[in-house]
Amino acid sequence: MTRDLTIAEVRLTPILVADPPLLNTQGVHQPYTPRLIVELVTADGVTGFGETYGDTKYLELARPLAERLTGRSVMDVNGLFGIDLGVDASRVEGQVDAGGLRGVQSADKLRLSVLSAFEVACLDAQGKALGLPVHALLGGKVRDSVEYSAYLFYKWARHPAGVACEQDDWGAALDPAGVVRQARLLKERHGFTSFKLKGGVFPPDEEVAAVRALAEAFPGHPLRLDPNGAWSVETSLKVAKELGDVLEYLEDPALGTAAMAEVSAGTAVPLATNMCVTTFGEIKEAFTRDAVQVVLCDHHYWGGLRNTRQLAAVCAAFGVGVSMHSNTHLGISLAAMTQVAATVPGLHHACDSHYPWQSEDVLTERLRFRDGRVAVLDAPGLGVELDRDELARLHRRWADDDGALRDRDDAAAMRVAEPGWRQPVMPRW
Amino acid sequence: MTRDLTIAEVRLTPILVADPPLLNTQGVHQPYTPRLIVELVTADGVTGFGETYGDTKYLELARPLAERLTGRSVMDVNGLFGIDLGVDASRVEGQVDAGGLRGVQSADKLRLSVLSAFEVACLDAQGKALGLPVHALLGGKVRDSVEYSAYLFYKWARHPAGVACEQDDWGAALDPAGVVRQARLLKERHGFTSFKLKGGVFPPDEEVAAVRALAEAFPGHPLRLDPNGAWSVETSLKVAKELGDVLEYLEDPALGTAAMAEVSAGTAVPLATNMCVTTFGEIKEAFTRDAVQVVLCDHHYWGGLRNTRQLAAVCAAFGVGVSMHSNTHLGISLAAMTQVAATVPGLHHACDSHYPWQSEDVLTERLRFRDGRVAVLDAPGLGVELDRDELARLHRRWADDDGALRDRDDAAAMRVAEPGWRQPVMPRW
Ligand SMILES: [Mg+2]
Ligand SMILES: [Mg+2]
Repeated sequence: MTRDLTIAEVRLTPILVADPPLLNTQGVHQPYTPRLIVELVTADGVTGFGETYGDTKYLELARPLAERLTGRSVMDVNGLFGIDLGVDASRVEGQVDAGGLRGVQSADKLRLSVLSAFEVACLDAQGKALGLPVHALLGGKVRDSVEYSAYLFYKWARHPAGVACEQDDWGAALDPAGVVRQARLLKERHGFTSFKLKGGVFPPDEEVAAVRALAEAFPGHPLRLDPNGAWSVETSLKVAKELGDVLEYLEDPALGTAAMAEVSAGTAVPLATNMCVTTFGEIKEAFTRDAVQVVLCDHHYWGGLRNTRQLAAVCAAFGVGVSMHSNTHLGISLAAMTQVAATVPGLHHACDSHYPWQSEDVLTERLRFRDGRVAVLDAPGLGVELDRDELARLHRRWADDDGALRDRDDAAAMRVAEPGWRQPVMPRW
Repeated sequence: MTRDLTIAEVRLTPILVADPPLLNTQGVHQPYTPRLIVELVTADGVTGFGETYGDTKYLELARPLAERLTGRSVMDVNGLFGIDLGVDASRVEGQVDAGGLRGVQSADKLRLSVLSAFEVACLDAQGKALGLPVHALLGGKVRDSVEYSAYLFYKWARHPAGVACEQDDWGAALDPAGVVRQARLLKERHGFTSFKLKGGVFPPDEEVAAVRALAEAFPGHPLRLDPNGAWSVETSLKVAKELGDVLEYLEDPALGTAAMAEVSAGTAVPLATNMCVTTFGEIKEAFTRDAVQVVLCDHHYWGGLRNTRQLAAVCAAFGVGVSMHSNTHLGISLAAMTQVAATVPGLHHACDSHYPWQSEDVLTERLRFRDGRVAVLDAPGLGVELDRDELARLHRRWADDDGALRDRDDAAAMRVAEPGWRQPVMPRW
């Protein structure tokens, strides 16, 4: 073997990607969302791709890290996680994340959210250099395609008047009929057969009615509702009772392990989370208290694909289900999610992905859902290629931004339409 | 890339290897112990090595498995673990293993004990085919050498008169002075600086005296005592109190999670185990009850090197320490242990290994301990080569055996010296 797996160059490209006006309990998605594209180039000229959050706080950690990677091997992934990024815990600990509803911020989560993009890029480069798909580097796929759910959102038809944005053709969804219409469209376009509604936007009764309408429109299909912790324990239990016959699981009805444990103790409806268990440090208490029955792993903040497999192992040992969380992301991350999901034997729920909402991508060819599934690519690495023109265009958008959009803030985006809007105090209902 | 990673041939070689008369609570090691050497040959002629228990029950599962592997890829390790070996649970569940003191038998443990040798052989073949050490396939080493402890045994000078055996030069160790003498010899020959005494052989007071003697001879050095569950909770707590000032940890003082949890609740001395937590299925109860503070992983029965890393991840999430267990094994397994141990960041205790007691090996060159540490090899795969003449010789010994030694049974070996000996009822003291 004569390959040189040494990292010779690291390229970081912050971009802004179009995002429709999707509503959640904190506010609404900005018209453009920051993402960071990571490229690791080996001495042999092999390039590995990774993708993560692009907000300033991630960029600030990624830049000095990038400078320290030259000369290291793309094989040395364990060593990568030993690098001290110098995260200032006092700046982040305990704050609620303003742009993504992924639980309490912590120094560890911030660190891993940055490292994950480099880990994925290392694995992509490894695979390309060795002639192997990433799934083979993770022990091999146990399935040929990965199932995703339709990610339904309450949605305005368009961003507030006067806001620079891309138009979308999904229309509005602000009541049960609108949600069902959106679900039909997602099913028609991508073949999804399970549905998740992002809730916490309207009073619980309206969201219960929307899920009921979905159950009538799609009888027997798995349904989920995720209010992002907007409800009290009492409200959570009421909804669980009302929707128990149609829900596959209820996602983060209440905030925090204590509240989730209380809800869990009072209902037979499984509880899923990507807010209460978001780091390895949060597992012990949550699992010991049986607070959650399904952990939705986001490889970005869990620290990459190998950590995703480790999380799956922890879940398996405790009889807790595992599936995947998603936030606004592009094709590099969808490819990464699909590669790792393909290797986890105990993946019994369709994964979440925002990807159908992203009209823009940095890939030469968009990944496609067929029958709600993404095929597991067997090409070397992640099996995807960068469209450099598009990457440059989206980077220019970021470079041209005055800073208003470089840090995702769904509450701030909401204030454009509703000037008095504040991030709601939880529980909202 | 033009390699062909398809498995073209599988070779299984059962062997008998010399074992000194080491005592434990069940009896004494047989003069020869069965091991199974696994070789996977790829279509390109790359050969991967693995090693596991060689008793009939493992062989019976390994043989049909070997026939099913031809045509599969050595990369497909996840798929390997999906193969149904058809273990007859009713034949094994709940039985105490007669030859190794590694907890209750289960269908899962038996299955994984067989698969692990094939997993290691796959990783060895992968590494050789890709030109990478096994540790790189596991994410890369985080240390250049792995520390091992001196594994002290009560020991006869020789096997019972009339028994065919190899002679050893370690002498007897049947009292505190003998144990200290043995420790000095192990330290002199291999540089070990931490010491573990296999106990459960003599009444606790005598073993306490032996550990005290070690503490005096090696002040400040980490010490451990492992009676393999021979004690009651009361006795365990008494010993913990008496040796609390010198023990790094107490290993499996009592049998089963309930008893271990009771001991754990009554002492500040950390409890380690390779009997109470031996499969992923046993973790939940033990960790939830805080029954153990250190899990000693044996990659043979945990299912290989990737599962060892997954176990380490579960332990890390629960604040439980991790180290390595050992039973009679040869250099292939020591190389495998060392490769995986090199990749686990949170390995804070020296690993156990019987290897210094094995005068025979199937490697062209024995692995060496320097200052109690084994260097992490960076050669492709495990970095070791088979001595085929020696393999053939040890296999002939197995083939020539009338069946008496093909299934390790320490109690049966003890009956040769003490005809009335029975496997003791636990707790013994
Ligand atoms: Mg969620
Ligand atoms: Mg032990």
